[in-house]
Amino acid sequence: MTNISKPIGLKTSVLLHGADYNYEQWLDYPEILDTDFKYMKEARCNVMSIGIFSWAEIEPQEGVFNFDWLDDLFDRLEANNIYAILGTPSGSKPAWLSKKYPEVCRVDEKGKREPHGQRHNHCRTSPIYREKVAIINRKLAQRYGKRKNLLLWHVSNEYNAGACYCDYCIDDFRKWLRVRYKTLDNLNKAWWTSFWSHRFTDWNQIFPSDNSISGLMLDWKRFISDQTLDFFKSEISVLREETPNIPITTNFMLPNVDLNYWNFAKYVDVISWDSYPRWHIGDREWMEGVKTAFFHDMHRSYKKAPFMMMESTPSATNWQGISIPKKPNMHLLSSLQAIAHGSNTVQYFQWRQSRGGEEKFHSAVVNHLGDDKTPVFKDVVEVGKKLENLSQIVNCRTNSQVAIIYDLENEWALSLAQLPRSQKKCYQDRCIAHYRALWNLGISCDIIDSLDSPFDNYKLVVAPMLYMLRDGVAEKFIKFVENGGTLILTYLTGLVNDSDLCFLGGFPGKLKELAGIVVEDTDVISNPLKQKIKVKWNADDEREYDVFHYADRLRVKTAEIKGKYTLSNMANTAAITENKFKNGVTWYLATRMEDSFYDDFYKKLIVDLNIKQNIISNLPQGVTCQKRSDEEGEFYFIMNFNKESVSLNIEDKELIDIDTDSKVINSIQLPSYGIKILKKAM
Amino acid sequence: MTNISKPIGLKTSVLLHGADYNYEQWLDYPEILDTDFKYMKEARCNVMSIGIFSWAEIEPQEGVFNFDWLDDLFDRLEANNIYAILGTPSGSKPAWLSKKYPEVCRVDEKGKREPHGQRHNHCRTSPIYREKVAIINRKLAQRYGKRKNLLLWHVSNEYNAGACYCDYCIDDFRKWLRVRYKTLDNLNKAWWTSFWSHRFTDWNQIFPSDNSISGLMLDWKRFISDQTLDFFKSEISVLREETPNIPITTNFMLPNVDLNYWNFAKYVDVISWDSYPRWHIGDREWMEGVKTAFFHDMHRSYKKAPFMMMESTPSATNWQGISIPKKPNMHLLSSLQAIAHGSNTVQYFQWRQSRGGEEKFHSAVVNHLGDDKTPVFKDVVEVGKKLENLSQIVNCRTNSQVAIIYDLENEWALSLAQLPRSQKKCYQDRCIAHYRALWNLGISCDIIDSLDSPFDNYKLVVAPMLYMLRDGVAEKFIKFVENGGTLILTYLTGLVNDSDLCFLGGFPGKLKELAGIVVEDTDVISNPLKQKIKVKWNADDEREYDVFHYADRLRVKTAEIKGKYTLSNMANTAAITENKFKNGVTWYLATRMEDSFYDDFYKKLIVDLNIKQNIISNLPQGVTCQKRSDEEGEFYFIMNFNKESVSLNIEDKELIDIDTDSKVINSIQLPSYGIKILKKAM
Amino acid sequence: MTNISKPIGLKTSVLLHGADYNYEQWLDYPEILDTDFKYMKEARCNVMSIGIFSWAEIEPQEGVFNFDWLDDLFDRLEANNIYAILGTPSGSKPAWLSKKYPEVCRVDEKGKREPHGQRHNHCRTSPIYREKVAIINRKLAQRYGKRKNLLLWHVSNEYNAGACYCDYCIDDFRKWLRVRYKTLDNLNKAWWTSFWSHRFTDWNQIFPSDNSISGLMLDWKRFISDQTLDFFKSEISVLREETPNIPITTNFMLPNVDLNYWNFAKYVDVISWDSYPRWHIGDREWMEGVKTAFFHDMHRSYKKAPFMMMESTPSATNWQGISIPKKPNMHLLSSLQAIAHGSNTVQYFQWRQSRGGEEKFHSAVVNHLGDDKTPVFKDVVEVGKKLENLSQIVNCRTNSQVAIIYDLENEWALSLAQLPRSQKKCYQDRCIAHYRALWNLGISCDIIDSLDSPFDNYKLVVAPMLYMLRDGVAEKFIKFVENGGTLILTYLTGLVNDSDLCFLGGFPGKLKELAGIVVEDTDVISNPLKQKIKVKWNADDEREYDVFHYADRLRVKTAEIKGKYTLSNMANTAAITENKFKNGVTWYLATRMEDSFYDDFYKKLIVDLNIKQNIISNLPQGVTCQKRSDEEGEFYFIMNFNKESVSLNIEDKELIDIDTDSKVINSIQLPSYGIKILKKAM
Repeated sequence: MTNISKPIGLKTSVLLHGADYNYEQWLDYPEILDTDFKYMKEARCNVMSIGIFSWAEIEPQEGVFNFDWLDDLFDRLEANNIYAILGTPSGSKPAWLSKKYPEVCRVDEKGKREPHGQRHNHCRTSPIYREKVAIINRKLAQRYGKRKNLLLWHVSNEYNAGACYCDYCIDDFRKWLRVRYKTLDNLNKAWWTSFWSHRFTDWNQIFPSDNSISGLMLDWKRFISDQTLDFFKSEISVLREETPNIPITTNFMLPNVDLNYWNFAKYVDVISWDSYPRWHIGDREWMEGVKTAFFHDMHRSYKKAPFMMMESTPSATNWQGISIPKKPNMHLLSSLQAIAHGSNTVQYFQWRQSRGGEEKFHSAVVNHLGDDKTPVFKDVVEVGKKLENLSQIVNCRTNSQVAIIYDLENEWALSLAQLPRSQKKCYQDRCIAHYRALWNLGISCDIIDSLDSPFDNYKLVVAPMLYMLRDGVAEKFIKFVENGGTLILTYLTGLVNDSDLCFLGGFPGKLKELAGIVVEDTDVISNPLKQKIKVKWNADDEREYDVFHYADRLRVKTAEIKGKYTLSNMANTAAITENKFKNGVTWYLATRMEDSFYDDFYKKLIVDLNIKQNIISNLPQGVTCQKRSDEEGEFYFIMNFNKESVSLNIEDKELIDIDTDSKVINSIQLPSYGIKILKKAM
Repeated sequence: MTNISKPIGLKTSVLLHGADYNYEQWLDYPEILDTDFKYMKEARCNVMSIGIFSWAEIEPQEGVFNFDWLDDLFDRLEANNIYAILGTPSGSKPAWLSKKYPEVCRVDEKGKREPHGQRHNHCRTSPIYREKVAIINRKLAQRYGKRKNLLLWHVSNEYNAGACYCDYCIDDFRKWLRVRYKTLDNLNKAWWTSFWSHRFTDWNQIFPSDNSISGLMLDWKRFISDQTLDFFKSEISVLREETPNIPITTNFMLPNVDLNYWNFAKYVDVISWDSYPRWHIGDREWMEGVKTAFFHDMHRSYKKAPFMMMESTPSATNWQGISIPKKPNMHLLSSLQAIAHGSNTVQYFQWRQSRGGEEKFHSAVVNHLGDDKTPVFKDVVEVGKKLENLSQIVNCRTNSQVAIIYDLENEWALSLAQLPRSQKKCYQDRCIAHYRALWNLGISCDIIDSLDSPFDNYKLVVAPMLYMLRDGVAEKFIKFVENGGTLILTYLTGLVNDSDLCFLGGFPGKLKELAGIVVEDTDVISNPLKQKIKVKWNADDEREYDVFHYADRLRVKTAEIKGKYTLSNMANTAAITENKFKNGVTWYLATRMEDSFYDDFYKKLIVDLNIKQNIISNLPQGVTCQKRSDEEGEFYFIMNFNKESVSLNIEDKELIDIDTDSKVINSIQLPSYGIKILKKAM
Repeated sequence: MTNISKPIGLKTSVLLHGADYNYEQWLDYPEILDTDFKYMKEARCNVMSIGIFSWAEIEPQEGVFNFDWLDDLFDRLEANNIYAILGTPSGSKPAWLSKKYPEVCRVDEKGKREPHGQRHNHCRTSPIYREKVAIINRKLAQRYGKRKNLLLWHVSNEYNAGACYCDYCIDDFRKWLRVRYKTLDNLNKAWWTSFWSHRFTDWNQIFPSDNSISGLMLDWKRFISDQTLDFFKSEISVLREETPNIPITTNFMLPNVDLNYWNFAKYVDVISWDSYPRWHIGDREWMEGVKTAFFHDMHRSYKKAPFMMMESTPSATNWQGISIPKKPNMHLLSSLQAIAHGSNTVQYFQWRQSRGGEEKFHSAVVNHLGDDKTPVFKDVVEVGKKLENLSQIVNCRTNSQVAIIYDLENEWALSLAQLPRSQKKCYQDRCIAHYRALWNLGISCDIIDSLDSPFDNYKLVVAPMLYMLRDGVAEKFIKFVENGGTLILTYLTGLVNDSDLCFLGGFPGKLKELAGIVVEDTDVISNPLKQKIKVKWNADDEREYDVFHYADRLRVKTAEIKGKYTLSNMANTAAITENKFKNGVTWYLATRMEDSFYDDFYKKLIVDLNIKQNIISNLPQGVTCQKRSDEEGEFYFIMNFNKESVSLNIEDKELIDIDTDSKVINSIQLPSYGIKILKKAM
């Protein structure tokens, strides 16, 4: 076992390659367990996530513990020089616990206690549940905390945001509200309860089921996220106590989970997430590459540090309706894409397909056939070998001059908002629409929160559809622009404050002066209505673009008009404005444009702002180039998410192909789903 | 304050222009309140609906009342010569009431008490609820009943037909059934309970959840409507007692509500309704104009008297998924359309956009920007000015020679019916399909109930798809035709009686002799099947039309065949018949035709029947002309619901354009969504 | 009354023609009852199903019985020489029973007792319910068991598989599990509860609501089917006791019911089922003829004996959304189709349309018009006459050399399975895809279960998508092939055992050696991905076919490659293999083909296997020829399910047209939906 250091913060000198390993499912099959370790070696695996969802195996009866199999597993991993990432089992409670203490099961909105079953559906407030989790976590920590191959705590595996409406939780919510609002009068004003006679006169009148009070529903979402964080903190307090030197993570999920991970990020030592794109679907399949890149960048941005891809599938999933098994090259491409964007690990769910259970047909490194000759196994071996050769990259970082704000609380508030056009708000998609243009230019972006992330190091901040401006955000924007930054704002920005109360005096609220415009009202574009804009990029280059869904009518104050609508009663009014403010600039994009606009816009902008990263100009559609670097060198990952091969000119003559260890002359060819890593020594 | 008279029946000498005004939401913003009254003047508003959903503001604790703000509001309205329409607050109960008396919340079909929240979800039978409503209504009546600008009571705002299954309500339902059926034997026969062993042997066995008994489900719908009416009557009994001279209304909703407003109409002094069309959607957007006209005509028909458009949006709504803000001219057109069809008011929800709450993004006269320069505000001012100039119209009536029956109980029964073709029954849509042809010919129609409306004054009665013939309806039809009337019947007519029991001996049941045909069976047309009819309009004009969905096979008795099917085994059998019966005529249209048939059919029919109203022949698609008149003159509203402008020939040389006050020579031009009002002195 | 014999097993010397007759609904209409018997004679009806769902009529109060009307009905049937099929009324409990004994109503998954209403929703375990059913069944048996026209018991009418979660049922389920698994350890292994901490440590922890444990959900389905069978057995034990000579049936439903009828088949004396195809829909409407044939063949296969078509509609249904009334000829065709495939009866739901109730608009022999002149009545008379002339066919059987396995437990397991492609598994449809090719070749097929049906008499067994290989099935296949049989296997075969546990070592599990291949993994084909195969049928006939959805990658062991993929990374790998094994052959079809492949494949195969039945070669699409025969002769039913007429060459010169009683010369013409029956004396 080499180089296991355990300060807070995950540190290994190698990239990690591994999987969830459910050893306990195979105790009746000793020959299979032997084979597993042989194959792990073959696949160059150096880490396994263990103990996940194994409460009933460890504690089959209340207070009766069986660690034998886990002891064996630790021994065998250690013997094979494989790190262990040890899960806490809180995500899946044993049947005896639900039976004896029904309070550990959630209560639904109708007041009905849910039956035992599934996973991750325990009440987070239940004192008994917290007590039982603390006991088993402490046992695990005491028994395995000193194992030299214990690399990391992997807490609970995929917390979700399911709600519980039991008395404990409702009571906790009311306490949370008291802390937030101090007085009922404050709460009534924040929630605008004078509408529809909703005024509360006693804290105990509040119940989180009235979706006509958006402030209430928004606070309920915040509460659930905070309460889950509180549960997480209760788990880790035991671990910190017993194993102060073992770092801690919990794996995040996106894009479907309603937890505000920016708050969780403060309490984990290393960020990890589970990445499950749906490859090979649709006629723009490379968009899945863009989307996945966006999420990788987000996870890197939480701590501006390398993260872990804690789960991914070696080929297909079994819970997405249709999941296409990875085509040739895709496994290598998707695995190294994570590395390119800042991951230091490639990990799978799972090592071996289970014989039974809900995920038995989820792809795994070893399938039911059980040998090492399958295409999937060979793909995994190929990744293992590549990672071995890339260990130099472990300390490389990514330095982005551009940030895109994707704000989860804004997502929540927008999803609750009833607008003249409530269909296709598409907040996340539109953030990714901006991102796509930059990705395709080879520009690295951080993906950040509006409130929790500092803007200091960026030249450009893009804030699409920032409907909700929480307290302090406008001030941050103003300071950023004053100091020379360039800010991009759009339609549906600055409509409400933290409590979903509309700003008076015109949108975008406190950003009006910064943008130099006021929104008079917002038109809705829907079939068969149409709208277009035209932009004069320079003297002899005027172009027209289709626009969609939303179109603000602007009153232009101090801003300069850069683009105009061309149709209907909006014709010739401002659609794009640029406002100089102290040392910086704010753009306002008043409508939702087709993709080619963003291509042209950001291409111009990065020249103006002198942002340069790509070693290749004119990257074709579906192709990007991403960089990781440290003081010793730069690594360029050139990735082709197209089914078709592409040919690229390389202008920089100092680049070395790490596969051939020779200099690249003029051009490279990337096959279908191909990746090429080039290195430049400093 | 001019001309507030308060007999039963709303009488003002002017058209009303106003909005819901939620003063109580802005008590913390005194400068906004000041601005409001300034802007009301500017917008020519002379009425405000107040106190709606303000129970918790007026009675923040049980028995503790706060009228200060409402006193102030009355003072300020009076000072500004603005009428007050005062709401009763029963639609939205305060949280303390639900908490102390859980019985006021409804119980769902599963027996679960609903949580407090939303609005209009109280139990209508609860004695406590009725008591508490009576107390607050009486307080309001005693305090404001003598205010000279109190124009009208606006009771509860938008009653709905949500069901409550609490013991009180179920008990009430059983009592209602006893009154209706006297004996269980009668009930068992009416509900045909010999089917599937459904016979009831005790009243307390009956519970309204068995949708396999259509008679039961239909009676449950009737009961809910009646019970809501009973609640309404309990509200107004207090108001009548305290303020016998203040007229009363409650605003109706269509097309989605399951309340039989014909019964409510008897108890209100003036009809009012809330009109929320979805403009600018689809490729036949003018159809929304037709549909809205149909509903306006329906509301005029309840009392054959002017009505109030109690709510409409100045631009877009926020609760329809997609609502397109009104394009230029549309606000004027849609506001005056209401006047054209008999409204004496144009009122909005709401005066000012709320800062919070479910409808904060619903358009209002004053938006969050808050000034009087927005396009919407200017549109409202334009309407205000027009209405000021149209006060002469207040006493004008509409005299229709044509009635279309749209029967709500028939809608309920049809919706419950399981037919060989249950998809696309489209009852309302088909009534509107007939209406469209007449509307486009400039013929005014009443929209009436089959049972409650007299037929005496009509030359033509159209009764599409009158599946259910309630007791007395066939007799009314027969008498109407005997006396010279022309009646239009269609497929799916006369299948069942009041209890949804099928007529024996052939459809259309008791109308067989009148129609001179019997329906043998009904074919279903569905892709890829096709059917057509041909009609010989005259010697050298035979035309063919596509038909859809339903096609009766007829046995022709005394009727004359006027059109035949042309395809499959129905070919050459009767599809359209005309039967002379005493002094009148009955047409039977055995199938569902494409629109152009109705154009040709009604064009011929109105000539034959000497029905004439339009001053313009050959109105283009999407254009109509509607008339209001009194002994002093006639007003013609020519309205273009097309996006494109149209040009129209005016044959009558005595018409004066009220905008220019000069005679119209030959032709007029209507722009996109344009309206022109012409006047003819008597 | 001729020839009523009552041994176990229905025996009549004539084909039966009749309907459900709800006499009790018309007791107030004596003239209608008189007309009914007159019309029955006219329609050549010789059987009526009576007493169905009439519990409340027979026992209006607990313990008070009224048999008067049923006595009368028996008398009148007997007087008219009409057999009676007597229903037990357990399917629809009276209201007084639910009121007094709430336990007879089911409890839903949330623990809520369901309200009284509808039908077939009683708890099957409730002791009270079983007791009350036994009492009324015994009364019926004692009173009518000796009636000489009592032909058959018709138990309960359409059992369904709705679930009850009451304590009785859950307790029963746990007992059922104890019998199945003996120990919790066995159960935990079978359900693979080491996944997600699902291990059970006490039987009473098990509750059938955790759909993440597929073994549990599958056993719950099995339990419900078994429990329903147990209820059925409790019903018939009384009948056997009281009327040992009256045969018993219960009518099966397909394709939507989750009862394993193979188990029921053992306990009924004659198979009966309710056939409700949806004719005249879609652009391949003849496929409905194929599908219906498939189900008829299945019902013949349960006992390899003639069956009863207990229900069918004379024209349209009213519960299918859209049901097209039968076009000319279709009623005769669809009725005789049942006879062609082995039915000895044509029976309708129902004789006369009810005036009320959920099915009042379902077609019946006599409709609401009520006379015998309607097209439907005439169609029924035509069928009656034909059946009279076909009585010779009563003892004819069908001898199939081909069997297609359609395995209901496999359907359940597949429906629960979460696969990389879970959309469009289409198990039943794909069985029918194979069947269609054989049907169109005029080859008769048995449709059988994998476990309960012997394979001895078949030359060819087709087992599409047999995902689950229950214990003993692989052994049956091996023996079948060893003995010279030809077996067709496909993709998605042999993945799991009885407990839904995956086979290790490669799919198709225990059939690997038999097939001579191993499945390495399975690709998912989905838009825009494409795949094709090519097959060389002989030296100069190579064809290409589109394939869909699933595509196994094979490792070919002992098999011979007969077809290959042509696209992507699968190109040139095996898609179709043939493996000789002892005296027989196993084909493996690794992907889902377009229809024309099956045409070509089975055409070749039946020649190779010397399977011949059709008297016509080159049957056009939508046309089949089916045979029934005994020692005296053969009947050929040539059926055209096309809207268009077809012309067919008849090669056999010894065939007699039973309508004209003359020999067929050269060719016959079948009109739209035409049928021709030819006879050959032995």
